[in-house]
Amino acid sequence: MQDFKFHNPTDIRFGRNHIDAELHDAVAQFGNNVLFVYGGQSIKKSGLYDRVKGLLADLNIVELGGVEPNPKLASVQEGQRLAKEHDIDVILAVGGGSVVDASKVIGSAKFYEGDPWDLVIKANGADRNVLPQVPIVDILTLSATGTEMNFGSVITNPETHEKYGTQGPNSPAVSFLDPELTETVPARQTAAGSIDIFSHLTEQYFDRDDANDASKGMIEGLMRAVIKWAPVAIADPTNYDARANLMWTATMALNGLVGAANEGGWTVHALEHELSAYYDITHGIGLGILTPRWMDWVLEDKSTVALFARFARNVWALSGDDDAQLARDAVQKTYDWIASLGAEMTLPEVGIKDDTYFEAMAANAVDHGKLIKRGYVPVTPADAQRIYRDSLVAFRGANN
Amino acid sequence: MQDFKFHNPTDIRFGRNHIDAELHDAVAQFGNNVLFVYGGQSIKKSGLYDRVKGLLADLNIVELGGVEPNPKLASVQEGQRLAKEHDIDVILAVGGGSVVDASKVIGSAKFYEGDPWDLVIKANGADRNVLPQVPIVDILTLSATGTEMNFGSVITNPETHEKYGTQGPNSPAVSFLDPELTETVPARQTAAGSIDIFSHLTEQYFDRDDANDASKGMIEGLMRAVIKWAPVAIADPTNYDARANLMWTATMALNGLVGAANEGGWTVHALEHELSAYYDITHGIGLGILTPRWMDWVLEDKSTVALFARFARNVWALSGDDDAQLARDAVQKTYDWIASLGAEMTLPEVGIKDDTYFEAMAANAVDHGKLIKRGYVPVTPADAQRIYRDSLVAFRGANN
Repeated sequence: MQDFKFHNPTDIRFGRNHIDAELHDAVAQFGNNVLFVYGGQSIKKSGLYDRVKGLLADLNIVELGGVEPNPKLASVQEGQRLAKEHDIDVILAVGGGSVVDASKVIGSAKFYEGDPWDLVIKANGADRNVLPQVPIVDILTLSATGTEMNFGSVITNPETHEKYGTQGPNSPAVSFLDPELTETVPARQTAAGSIDIFSHLTEQYFDRDDANDASKGMIEGLMRAVIKWAPVAIADPTNYDARANLMWTATMALNGLVGAANEGGWTVHALEHELSAYYDITHGIGLGILTPRWMDWVLEDKSTVALFARFARNVWALSGDDDAQLARDAVQKTYDWIASLGAEMTLPEVGIKDDTYFEAMAANAVDHGKLIKRGYVPVTPADAQRIYRDSLVAFRGANN
Repeated sequence: MQDFKFHNPTDIRFGRNHIDAELHDAVAQFGNNVLFVYGGQSIKKSGLYDRVKGLLADLNIVELGGVEPNPKLASVQEGQRLAKEHDIDVILAVGGGSVVDASKVIGSAKFYEGDPWDLVIKANGADRNVLPQVPIVDILTLSATGTEMNFGSVITNPETHEKYGTQGPNSPAVSFLDPELTETVPARQTAAGSIDIFSHLTEQYFDRDDANDASKGMIEGLMRAVIKWAPVAIADPTNYDARANLMWTATMALNGLVGAANEGGWTVHALEHELSAYYDITHGIGLGILTPRWMDWVLEDKSTVALFARFARNVWALSGDDDAQLARDAVQKTYDWIASLGAEMTLPEVGIKDDTYFEAMAANAVDHGKLIKRGYVPVTPADAQRIYRDSLVAFRGANN
């Protein structure tokens, strides 16, 4: 088990009965000047926009709407401008992971004089961890990224085809997690979010630290929860228990706890970020396409068989004595579960028709993800291209 | 899934390489006047006492040693006196759960004018949650109670045979969790600590909220970790991976996360607190005696069979179609595992020879644990007496 530090003071308010009674004071404790960040029209259609404005009627609200999925640098730049101009005390982020991610970087950018892209790529001496950060209060409307209880953001610069993670000094101060607010999420977004949750768990589960049973055990339990409840939420969108399990699983999957004692060799996210950066596809859908191909490729390294067999037994409830067969069956189960959610399962289905950018994408992913040094199984640019190419065609099946 | 709030800002420093570099600043950030609380001679024998004193040589150290297991009111009273007299800024607790538990209440008692027992039982208008609390920094030397990342303490008043839990406003500010410091813990204490961890998990697992898969799944994984590693730590005390898994499992079992969305019907702890209060036995050993008898009794309520069968499959890796049989087998497995750790398995083995106090103990447990209203299966005083009496004799076997 690896040494680690863990410190995550996010104040979670989970359930149906917190926002009306508690939102005002959760925001106003930090001041009167509020930057209200949101995405598209969905919170206006659902009534959440009006509800929030009503609860905060006595505060000075400045709005930044239109934050897109795979949040773009332009939104952060606009947020920086507003935060400085209005001397913002607190950011209220209402939406999914993109809105919260952008808000965190805006929170740092208020205190930075240059382009906030510097903060993402640590250019020109920029360092978010030595800057103050405007506190974030969020109301989450999509279960997926875990940003509601962590320090990370992922920001895309469309001009340069770059999509990178960045960590700030603070996780959100207060996160309101009301599963009912996710009951209007469409099936495809529910699928994509659930795949994202599952991917966060596989990225931390398939880790080279092999004596980390406390972490692996928690991850297995969270995997079973998302495997069970994602199809329920898709079939029955207003099933509260399904939405609640997905929401809490999403938070637990990436608040730093279940991977705290890991070596930390995430691979598929680095590969996927290139897909989103070049083609602006939905992150979770990209993960769902890549994950089975990555697993299929990883299994060629026989040192991984024991852990995949454990994954088979403890997550997929498979039994048997042949670890190699169990491992392959678990990969097939993973593919089948993702497909069962209605997600697209090849790159051409999401508009990526050929390998035009694969060489560049593979090089970037390996470089920025440090995949040769840190991957659960080291990934070279050639390996990464192989995984991308395998994703152009139908999955050959883990047993073929 | 129940609504909940979760906010736990304890700063965890886990592993071998934190104390020497980080202890000084972790303590000194709160001031120069330090109350150094510890238990018996073990930290002097191990060298930890001298190491700590060396690291904090420039601070004003006031010592409170001799805090006993099942920490007594007298230690808290003495700590209160010292904290006031020396205007203590920060408490450094070095030891097991008892030392940390006592320190938390001392941290409140500095700001209270009356007897600190008032704080425990909320008498004479005392309320820890409206008082300040001196910050706690701890170095844990025993994996068991989880106090290193929660808000609770359990304090015993020997004069009145009372042992009660109390919650303060703050969890420890910084907790140093170095598994190497637990490598000298004797086998019986390792067993007792591991049983305590397991009991925290069963108390939260057997909960009436039945749609709480994220929590139950994490608990199952943590249970498997303690089941696997406790025997290893007993057989091979310096096995780092065993000590590390027990330490992190102990923290995760009771930092508020895995039971956050529960109804919360703890039973066995309320029953055990009476044993410790009347006979001052080791808490974990008492839990190990009571838990199988409680499970055996609970299973008479057929509504519990499905969850016990899940426990059998996901924790004990049992398989089969007969849920009732699986449930009984899981209880037997639980008994066998506790016994395998070398723990005493009947009350007479720990000096409780007859039922002299059972009527009073049962009444207290049901009253203070609210066991009729809140128990996973409601427990009347007569039921509690039955569980105590069953613990006087050898376990009859879950299948008999």
